Amino acid sequence: KHIVVIAGDGIGQEVTTVGKQVLDRVAEKFGHEFTYDEALIGHAAIEATGNPLPEETVTKSKQSDAILFGAVGHPKYDNDPSAKVRPEQGLLGIRKALGLYANLRPIKLFDELLQASSIKPEFLQGADILFFRELTGDVYFGEKGRKDEGDTAYDLMIYSRYEVERIAVKAFEAAMTRRKKLCSVDKANVLESSRLWREVVQEVAKRYPEVEVEHQFIDAAAMLLIKDPRRFDVVVTGNLFGDILTDEASQIAGSMGMLASASIGDTTGLYEPIHGSAHDITGKGVANPLASVLSAALMLEISFGLKAEAEAVVNAVDQVLKAGYRTRDIANATTPADRILGTQAMG
Amino acid sequence: KHIVVIAGDGIGQEVTTVGKQVLDRVAEKFGHEFTYDEALIGHAAIEATGNPLPEETVTKSKQSDAILFGAVGHPKYDNDPSAKVRPEQGLLGIRKALGLYANLRPIKLFDELLQASSIKPEFLQGADILFFRELTGDVYFGEKGRKDEGDTAYDLMIYSRYEVERIAVKAFEAAMTRRKKLCSVDKANVLESSRLWREVVQEVAKRYPEVEVEHQFIDAAAMLLIKDPRRFDVVVTGNLFGDILTDEASQIAGSMGMLASASIGDTTGLYEPIHGSAHDITGKGVANPLASVLSAALMLEISFGLKAEAEAVVNAVDQVLKAGYRTRDIANATTPADRILGTQAMG
Ligand SMILES: CC(C)[C@H](C(=O)O)[C@@H](O)C(=O)O
Ligand SMILES: CC(C)[C@H](C(=O)O)[C@@H](O)C(=O)O
Repeated sequence: KHIVVIAGDGIGQEVTTVGKQVLDRVAEKFGHEFTYDEALIGHAAIEATGNPLPEETVTKSKQSDAILFGAVGHPKYDNDPSAKVRPEQGLLGIRKALGLYANLRPIKLFDELLQASSIKPEFLQGADILFFRELTGDVYFGEKGRKDEGDTAYDLMIYSRYEVERIAVKAFEAAMTRRKKLCSVDKANVLESSRLWREVVQEVAKRYPEVEVEHQFIDAAAMLLIKDPRRFDVVVTGNLFGDILTDEASQIAGSMGMLASASIGDTTGLYEPIHGSAHDITGKGVANPLASVLSAALMLEISFGLKAEAEAVVNAVDQVLKAGYRTRDIANATTPADRILGTQAMG
Repeated sequence: KHIVVIAGDGIGQEVTTVGKQVLDRVAEKFGHEFTYDEALIGHAAIEATGNPLPEETVTKSKQSDAILFGAVGHPKYDNDPSAKVRPEQGLLGIRKALGLYANLRPIKLFDELLQASSIKPEFLQGADILFFRELTGDVYFGEKGRKDEGDTAYDLMIYSRYEVERIAVKAFEAAMTRRKKLCSVDKANVLESSRLWREVVQEVAKRYPEVEVEHQFIDAAAMLLIKDPRRFDVVVTGNLFGDILTDEASQIAGSMGMLASASIGDTTGLYEPIHGSAHDITGKGVANPLASVLSAALMLEISFGLKAEAEAVVNAVDQVLKAGYRTRDIANATTPADRILGTQAMG
């Protein structure tokens, strides 16, 4: 299998290094051969080539069996709303170029981290949610621009039937292998694009009569997610609402540093932590690499069909946590100092 | 003072009845005279007139000194994405017609409710956030429609400089009277309308050098709000992001049933619980009326400048909670049965 590593910006480098080491160890233990290539994206690519998504990165990615992705972003652009070239264009561009329309974000709490969250353990225990976030449509990719000499700015929130249908099908298929519950999130009481979303999900639902379906408005969903996380099994939603809900849901898993994601479409898959570039801790060797490690596990399972290998990785993470080891973000006041590890040691 | 009561749908009737009773008691105790009128909106108005916002409701509202508002919404429309007439059009319509561009949503936890939340008390204690949600712009009011024979649906997310500026000014002014911290929430790494938002907030910030300003992306904000609610003082954001964040923030206050809001602009003010019509508990007499009571308190303070009267109402709520009385939504396993009250008794 040929893997392209796109580390990107900030802690992206440090954490994907660990993700790759884990893939190497799996190859060794299970007798596989993984070859690697590297490619640039984001701020790193802008610095090197002027382009947040060099053509070469797209070409290499298209030829790969899977992509191990780090993060993009840089504070420099965040505080300059007029910047024309931005790191995020690289990430949005590669999602679009590879047709990665389905972003899977599993939210599962490792028992050992029950105390790491701001949410009470009795609300969390047993929570297990699989988000399907649509990833190549919505207000992210609709026409955007300025008018009135720059004094008015707009972004078109837009969905077409086939875009909703294909992600809904993936979400229902997943629900069939789980607890057979699906929650679709929209804002159909206000938005026309959400009304289309709901229409299509209702239609697809007819093909899966065994799945219990509910529709929630995004505002209610944002509330219910912390009020009662266990009521959710599979959640399917649009690009923007999915961005918001999955970041929020990171508190269910104790820390954003634990959450992996898989972006899939019709060809290659891209595996990426949910956390961003985190420039405040970049280069300090303290970033939690487990989201990258768990992203590698998702790659093994989803892109390579290596279920036992994926499980071995997840078990390893579980064992390490059981042994009391923590990175800073998931440590608390009672963690002994000698159990607090840096990025490499945790790897 | 002349008050128009617009009870609307679902539990709107039950809770505004209590809000109005509290206003009457204030008038009696402090020697004021409040006169009332009623008006229709939402599903109730559709049933009576075919129109979710009858002209008469707008006229009466414009002539009022303040509006006590209930809720709108009905499940019938939620599950029918093709409905042309919807209760929510009444609410959106009145916000627009009265120019209520600033929606203030104070999130403050009554000490007695520290245990009512799914969030750990040690993360909540002392949290006190004032949200400024822009209320007459954004994707709520941009052009919306269908094309491709109905197979594509869109909503325009759009902001103009003056819209951002006027809400930003209100938020900065409020920050000056509080802890002098302001967090502006957008998605400027992806959306052009957010980049304009950030630009304008940065400009307005220059006029308030004493206020410490931070900008957060909506995804990060949704996470930080539960991870560390106490880091926030004033939060200013757009219509859609504000809708999501304030519902989420209801968990900080223990229950949505406790949260009041004030919608203001250049003329009359509208006072409304954050909770919706809640048809599942409508007519059962169990709805928590405290959000309506606290909305009445906001009316006394903001529209009428009656600070002592507003404080008396908030204190009364505090006393009732201290005495152990709860409605169902804020009760827990240890609440004695004789302390669990219905809507009228709580009032
Ligand atoms: C970096 C940003 C453009 C991106 C997004 O909003 O999609 C990130 O938040 C994510 O969730 O992957
Ligand atoms: C009922 C609905 C249209 C409304 C909104 O989204 O603004 C409600 O959720 C609110 O927050 O007041």
